[in-house]
Amino acid sequence: MNRDPRYDLLFEPLRIGPVTTKNRFYQVPHCTGMGWLRPRMLAEMRGVKAEGGWGVVCTEYNSIHPASDDLPHPSGSLWDDSDIRANALMVEKVHAHGALAGAELWFGGARTANLYSREVSMDVISAPNFTGHPFQTRAMDRQDIRDFRSWHRDAALRAKEAGYDIVYVYATHGYLLSNFLSPVMNTRSDDYGGSLTNRVRLVREVVEETKEAVGDRCAVAVRWSADESIGEDGVPVFGERHEMFGLLADLPDLWDINIADYSVEMGLSRFVKEGALEPYMRHVKAMTSKPVVTVGRFTSPDTMARWVKSGLVDLIGAARPSIADPFLPKKIEEGRLDEIRECIGCNVCYAGDGIGVPIRCTQNPAMGEEWRRGWHPERLPPAPRAATVLIVGAGPAGLEAARAAAVRGYEVMLAEAGTELGGRVTREARLPGLGEWIRVRDYRVQALQKMPNVQIFLDSEMTAEAVREVGADHVGIATGARWRPEVHEMGAFRAVAPEGVPVLTPDSIMAGQMPEGPTLVFDGDGYYHGAAIAEKLAAAGRPVTYATAEDSVASWGGYTIESGRVRARLMRLGVRLVLSHAMGAFDGARARLSCVYTGAEQELAATSLVMVSARRPNDGLYRALLDAAGGDPGALPFTLKRIGDCEAPALIAAATHAGYRYAFELDAPDAPEGPPAHDRVDVGFDGLEIPAHWK
Amino acid sequence: MNRDPRYDLLFEPLRIGPVTTKNRFYQVPHCTGMGWLRPRMLAEMRGVKAEGGWGVVCTEYNSIHPASDDLPHPSGSLWDDSDIRANALMVEKVHAHGALAGAELWFGGARTANLYSREVSMDVISAPNFTGHPFQTRAMDRQDIRDFRSWHRDAALRAKEAGYDIVYVYATHGYLLSNFLSPVMNTRSDDYGGSLTNRVRLVREVVEETKEAVGDRCAVAVRWSADESIGEDGVPVFGERHEMFGLLADLPDLWDINIADYSVEMGLSRFVKEGALEPYMRHVKAMTSKPVVTVGRFTSPDTMARWVKSGLVDLIGAARPSIADPFLPKKIEEGRLDEIRECIGCNVCYAGDGIGVPIRCTQNPAMGEEWRRGWHPERLPPAPRAATVLIVGAGPAGLEAARAAAVRGYEVMLAEAGTELGGRVTREARLPGLGEWIRVRDYRVQALQKMPNVQIFLDSEMTAEAVREVGADHVGIATGARWRPEVHEMGAFRAVAPEGVPVLTPDSIMAGQMPEGPTLVFDGDGYYHGAAIAEKLAAAGRPVTYATAEDSVASWGGYTIESGRVRARLMRLGVRLVLSHAMGAFDGARARLSCVYTGAEQELAATSLVMVSARRPNDGLYRALLDAAGGDPGALPFTLKRIGDCEAPALIAAATHAGYRYAFELDAPDAPEGPPAHDRVDVGFDGLEIPAHWK
Repeated sequence: MNRDPRYDLLFEPLRIGPVTTKNRFYQVPHCTGMGWLRPRMLAEMRGVKAEGGWGVVCTEYNSIHPASDDLPHPSGSLWDDSDIRANALMVEKVHAHGALAGAELWFGGARTANLYSREVSMDVISAPNFTGHPFQTRAMDRQDIRDFRSWHRDAALRAKEAGYDIVYVYATHGYLLSNFLSPVMNTRSDDYGGSLTNRVRLVREVVEETKEAVGDRCAVAVRWSADESIGEDGVPVFGERHEMFGLLADLPDLWDINIADYSVEMGLSRFVKEGALEPYMRHVKAMTSKPVVTVGRFTSPDTMARWVKSGLVDLIGAARPSIADPFLPKKIEEGRLDEIRECIGCNVCYAGDGIGVPIRCTQNPAMGEEWRRGWHPERLPPAPRAATVLIVGAGPAGLEAARAAAVRGYEVMLAEAGTELGGRVTREARLPGLGEWIRVRDYRVQALQKMPNVQIFLDSEMTAEAVREVGADHVGIATGARWRPEVHEMGAFRAVAPEGVPVLTPDSIMAGQMPEGPTLVFDGDGYYHGAAIAEKLAAAGRPVTYATAEDSVASWGGYTIESGRVRARLMRLGVRLVLSHAMGAFDGARARLSCVYTGAEQELAATSLVMVSARRPNDGLYRALLDAAGGDPGALPFTLKRIGDCEAPALIAAATHAGYRYAFELDAPDAPEGPPAHDRVDVGFDGLEIPAHWK
Repeated sequence: MNRDPRYDLLFEPLRIGPVTTKNRFYQVPHCTGMGWLRPRMLAEMRGVKAEGGWGVVCTEYNSIHPASDDLPHPSGSLWDDSDIRANALMVEKVHAHGALAGAELWFGGARTANLYSREVSMDVISAPNFTGHPFQTRAMDRQDIRDFRSWHRDAALRAKEAGYDIVYVYATHGYLLSNFLSPVMNTRSDDYGGSLTNRVRLVREVVEETKEAVGDRCAVAVRWSADESIGEDGVPVFGERHEMFGLLADLPDLWDINIADYSVEMGLSRFVKEGALEPYMRHVKAMTSKPVVTVGRFTSPDTMARWVKSGLVDLIGAARPSIADPFLPKKIEEGRLDEIRECIGCNVCYAGDGIGVPIRCTQNPAMGEEWRRGWHPERLPPAPRAATVLIVGAGPAGLEAARAAAVRGYEVMLAEAGTELGGRVTREARLPGLGEWIRVRDYRVQALQKMPNVQIFLDSEMTAEAVREVGADHVGIATGARWRPEVHEMGAFRAVAPEGVPVLTPDSIMAGQMPEGPTLVFDGDGYYHGAAIAEKLAAAGRPVTYATAEDSVASWGGYTIESGRVRARLMRLGVRLVLSHAMGAFDGARARLSCVYTGAEQELAATSLVMVSARRPNDGLYRALLDAAGGDPGALPFTLKRIGDCEAPALIAAATHAGYRYAFELDAPDAPEGPPAHDRVDVGFDGLEIPAHWK
């Protein structure tokens, strides 16, 4: 296929200082949970993005010195010359595909507690650490400022030696340089505080010094917030930002723009839609002659083309869309728009760095597995023989297993008991705000429908006998899970209502049941289901109480930056919150809850209870097949595996990962059960070998 | 000096299966935040304990397979043969000092989410992950149980090959094997569930198979909970545990006993005192002929001797006391009891693994720095020249700086403005429950008083002129910090009361001031100060409200296992809690707070406000000295540094670390400003060299 000429402008080269990007697709710096701990995983992952057509591929936040150490969150590092080689790994992978590589030099200041290096954090003033760890910064004195500038310069030189084409000055996101800019935090009385010119001084010096050090060969970018403080969504509060920007407007080679409210910039699809920074951008572009990039969870080529054409930006920035689909630019270039795997805006990717483990993606199961398992978002190894695969269940695990097996060349049959595809994704996408999650289904269904070696059967509940009759070589059971009505307490399940008193579950609500009267939603799950159901019921006018044994609403959502917004939304809808209380009993008229700290009980009037606690795998078919073989899968005339929630209910991201893995490992009987041994080479204990496929 | 004969029994050898420990000091397995990510840091740290006289030194939880992966919390690992070398590093260091090395084989089950390996967690049943991550386990089928047993056996063989003398079967702490034992969680209907014999089956099989695999050369230990469920502190709830224990009593070579309530086993000194497991132990010893060890934060040799003599245990187990003083056994052996650096029971050590960074210790600043900085808990390099050191301020940083400098042979003068030593430690130890923290002062004061090259001056406030007159070669300013009355909001400080309306701080309360009338304690700090002050006031009969912008009381205390107990204590004392509210204003009669989610305001009656927010360094003397030199420390006739809170207010652990570092780096002008380059070799990117001192 050919590119739609409307998108030609996205493929025009652009000069950025001394370098030129081949197109307008720009992977802005984004964290990965890999950083300096896992350089090979990182290099391979970034390399795949370059292969997928991104014109520029940047690092994550790349620490310039041990005094800026963010562990347990793994940043990159350019601390000393040994880092040059680690960084060069990534640069080489990116250059191999004709892309530019960018290094985001970073100094955290009050946002890093230096828990690994144990250096004192330093920042514009003496203040508590923003991360909540009990350490304060040292207010930087003149020597500290000189040190910082020299560390930054040294790191820029190392970045250049590693081969980077773009070197960043990172002046936003609450890190050191943005704190110097801040009219609120910067209360210094020296040359670096007070007047606007003084507060801009350090950024200016660092930009100038970086240009002086590496500007002959590297472009110097500044990452910058367009606004000063956090306004209501989409309503810019520029403050003195225009004036500040004016002082620097033509100094760097590139502006990478974001905004003060990270929960908008990095907004969940639940709250923030594509291109949300539009109201901020026109002002920025008007004030500088230099190229400008920003993000907006862009997945639509039409939006991208409009943004470039109308002069909002010169380059389309992306973090999440490039994670969900590293081949997004290639697909636009080749007119394969229906193959774009669109980001669903769930922010599971962001949870990786927050928790301190490698990034994963709901849509792209290969994310993070490029190096250690050899997975690729577009390609899988061809099947070693002609064989048939039966997948039972068309939820996210089954759809992905079918898709990936079909890509490998297997003859695939996909049997779904219900009348629609998508399983839990289809059901959950109907919950408030989760509409974009349907993309998990749509991407896979479109792919399946295009492949001649795939047959899809709806309304086809499978028995063990029916499965055997199909005569497939491989059978994957992806029959999902259903929510349990019992409360879960550390491995124990307890019924909370006497027989005859109905207890609803998320499945009931997603099936369209609406409770009458005052309703208690008890959230023993802690991610999105409980709060989304409370929201749905409250929005429909039900009086709702949301209770949980945790101290916070939707506590795991802290990792995806949603807990706070979710809580605010529930409160505004009038949902009553009962936190830190365990579920006692429910009799159809009243519910009893007890304080997890003191045991004190409270009763509340509720005629309905929605229990959101745990799920039971729908593994009856799997068990029936296994039992018929005397429990020995080897005695069956086909291979038999469970995939996704049917094996172990979890994130949708785990389901798509399981589906891909199922297909990847088909007919590879010698593959170890666990992850391949090279899984740990990235910790690089020196006796280990680098696997051949990586060298 | 000689050993007190009362302690002779602590130095009697003891046979444990096929091996013999030289004494009764047993470092039980404890986490370190190092694990497989940082094998060299780990090996050196464990080696120092062996050097300090521990007869047995064990690993942390040591994963047998990628299906038990606890990242971001770094466990050890014996996943494959490449791990043998990493583990052997530690074994060699331990053996070099005549100690036995023990490996705690571990499979986490429902307590691991496998966020790194992405393997499905498996456990006795299908249940949500206990860590709160949104993944459920797979209920183990027969093949899973076979796999687990074979993984365990393989790991035991690897442990033997790495040289370990003791190999553990880890059957407690909510991990896989303990879940099979559980009468509540184990609802299986096969041979591994139901009857007590069935529930014990897997533990029995694994013990037998481990003995069969490695028992010829290695002792097999079982880590086991003496009780079944969590009773009130110190009140055992044995349930069927006696009967269960009876089934296994003489099967392993050693019993390592703990209890169901981790917050007692690992209790803070604030709540739990030395030897708290006594009520549990007599029953255990009576039922087995095999050696028994347990923990109890033992630091008193009298208690240890009594426990062994009276037959409560055969071996004195220790985690925290061995962290605070790796040389505790040697000091008892050599009659140097006053040199014991006693654990204060603050649990800052435990926070390391919880956060995912290397362990540190309030009392032992060398903890975690043995390999990367070459620090040792007892020895420092001798001063390269005769020189004098003046330390101003006798808080934890100043005391440690003076002590460590004196150990190096410097002539040390310690000047304290007040009339008592200890600074913040002395003040804070008077807060409810923190009495044992005074050990930070006492250890150092006793050490200083014994050294002839130390002079201590009390009641000696120093001016810049007085410092210059002393004529020291080195001047360290450790003048601490004081709490600010303003509220802190992400780098901004705001006065909350009009002029003339007093606002109290922790300093006021610790100085003995008691507010009258209803009092609001606003906790913007989140560790122990706010809640301890609320407790003190409430216990004195004041009506107290504790407010915080966080969702939890003393939220950082979650890492030290204290938040829950602290909150329960405050609630029982009648303290009113206002969570998730930011501080507005206070006028001497009322305080205004606003919900951090909706902005909704509430007013409460309060005639006193204690603001616990942030600290201001007492750096006036440092600045005066620097200013007199035109801001250039090089122009002074002495070296000048700030140490501890005076540089950057933080944990007491940071203050003692800063004090040690100050002394360690004296007269080492070529030392890099940051941590030494080899700081990062432990990530083992293969191009890096191993530093010479380690080879």
